[in-house]
Amino acid sequence: MNFTALHQQVKQQTDTSLNTLIDDLPHDAPRLKEAMRHALLVGGKRMRPLLVQVIGNTLDVPKGDQMAISMAIECVHAYSLVHDDLPAMDDDDLRRGQPTCHIAFDEATAILAGDALQALAFSTLADAPLSDFATNKRGELLSVLARAAGYRGMCGGQAIDLTSTGEEISLEQLKRLHNLKTGALLRACVEMVSIVSQDLDSNSKADLLAYADDIGLAFQVQDDILDVEGNSEQLGKPAGSDIALGKNTFPAKLGIEGAKRELDKLHQNALQALARLPYNTDSLIAFSELLVKRDH
Amino acid sequence: MNFTALHQQVKQQTDTSLNTLIDDLPHDAPRLKEAMRHALLVGGKRMRPLLVQVIGNTLDVPKGDQMAISMAIECVHAYSLVHDDLPAMDDDDLRRGQPTCHIAFDEATAILAGDALQALAFSTLADAPLSDFATNKRGELLSVLARAAGYRGMCGGQAIDLTSTGEEISLEQLKRLHNLKTGALLRACVEMVSIVSQDLDSNSKADLLAYADDIGLAFQVQDDILDVEGNSEQLGKPAGSDIALGKNTFPAKLGIEGAKRELDKLHQNALQALARLPYNTDSLIAFSELLVKRDH
Repeated sequence: MNFTALHQQVKQQTDTSLNTLIDDLPHDAPRLKEAMRHALLVGGKRMRPLLVQVIGNTLDVPKGDQMAISMAIECVHAYSLVHDDLPAMDDDDLRRGQPTCHIAFDEATAILAGDALQALAFSTLADAPLSDFATNKRGELLSVLARAAGYRGMCGGQAIDLTSTGEEISLEQLKRLHNLKTGALLRACVEMVSIVSQDLDSNSKADLLAYADDIGLAFQVQDDILDVEGNSEQLGKPAGSDIALGKNTFPAKLGIEGAKRELDKLHQNALQALARLPYNTDSLIAFSELLVKRDH
Repeated sequence: MNFTALHQQVKQQTDTSLNTLIDDLPHDAPRLKEAMRHALLVGGKRMRPLLVQVIGNTLDVPKGDQMAISMAIECVHAYSLVHDDLPAMDDDDLRRGQPTCHIAFDEATAILAGDALQALAFSTLADAPLSDFATNKRGELLSVLARAAGYRGMCGGQAIDLTSTGEEISLEQLKRLHNLKTGALLRACVEMVSIVSQDLDSNSKADLLAYADDIGLAFQVQDDILDVEGNSEQLGKPAGSDIALGKNTFPAKLGIEGAKRELDKLHQNALQALARLPYNTDSLIAFSELLVKRDH
């Protein structure tokens, strides 16, 4: 299967499984339930499940374990977008061309939907039928996910982003911010798959994590570049919103050409990490290209 | 040690341990870190850690396992209060006589502090050094906590509370709402301690859970009664706020005398469940009295 077809398949499988995850909830609080569904299914590109599957296939991890990891990661990702979009945070009305959760529903429901999705991430992973090998690693998986989601990851990154908005920060601080805000969850994908892989040596694990860190940061640099050069229609949200908010961005820090050089450098670093691996890394190379060459 | 002294000890131990939990976080996002500390330490009565310890001692559960459960439960409880107090939710400025998190900090920080505290609940439980017996049950503990925190518990209850505010609901629906919103986390305390207890038979477990359900609902009925009859100063928040918000309450449904009869009935049911247990239940009796006879 070529890479584009694989991505399509991952999208469909992920959408179907997430839909089922919501269907399986009782019907006590229908508005909250639909807000959670909206948050999970509003046109995600499913980059993280794709990464999980590409690395999982490379490391011969059973499909069921891959799927459990992907579901949990997507719940965390979806919750973070819902809360980031809130009026008190980035105040975004549109995401991927659709109304954000607090616009489609209301602010209280959006706060709760985010909260419930975070809990769902942990309960789906705590309850998922895993392989015997992965079952013994369940605590470790949950630990990695919780760390990536919390103060030491996404929440910490978002807090630094908020306090540094409108202020000058160094390039190092900007990288640190995005390593936490965006990078931590991508890194968690790789780490979680590594944990349930039965024969991954520590050098290869380090190379895979280096790859994750490089593409995680590259993803954000490209995001910043698209905010400057992208097309609002393709982005599904207004271009230029970072600048309007006074956010620290790579183009603001390095100039647009400097940001593109940084993107290329990160991409090359990621490819070098892959070159050290004793696996066929074609799909990991394709994944990194998908991230850095995307136009939305 | 008498029960009051035990409660004091639990309060001090819990405060100290939660403070250390926050101290141990890196210093990347100091404002978020202090908001999390504020949320965790703003004068909590530590009813849930007390319940964990009382049941844990009754069932001979090691102190370390009790403490791990209590820390996680308090993180979930604290996060839920921060989010419930937000302007889009109950819009409360005061809690226990102190400014709520979004007043002491700001709304974005309060949202993030709640989010990060929820993640911290799971990471502290996933990482805690547990007894060997409890280590094998870690996935189960995390599952129970996630269920109680999420759509099937607290978040679902809060959503039903929001959508039913200003509308007439039945007594059964009101009970269901509070079984989810307040009861689920108290029940989770009992369930988690039961999971790590080595010799609890299924009948006794059922009786303990019945006790938890009864006192959980009694706790809420007493809360509603205090909102009508209590003293704002003792409550640390304005009395009458439920009525002002158009909330469904037990006194609104049953009259104040009817609510008191309901409280007494629930208390008697809880005591009957205890009477069936093959343990010394003095401290569990004392705990139920603390809940129903409190004046704040």
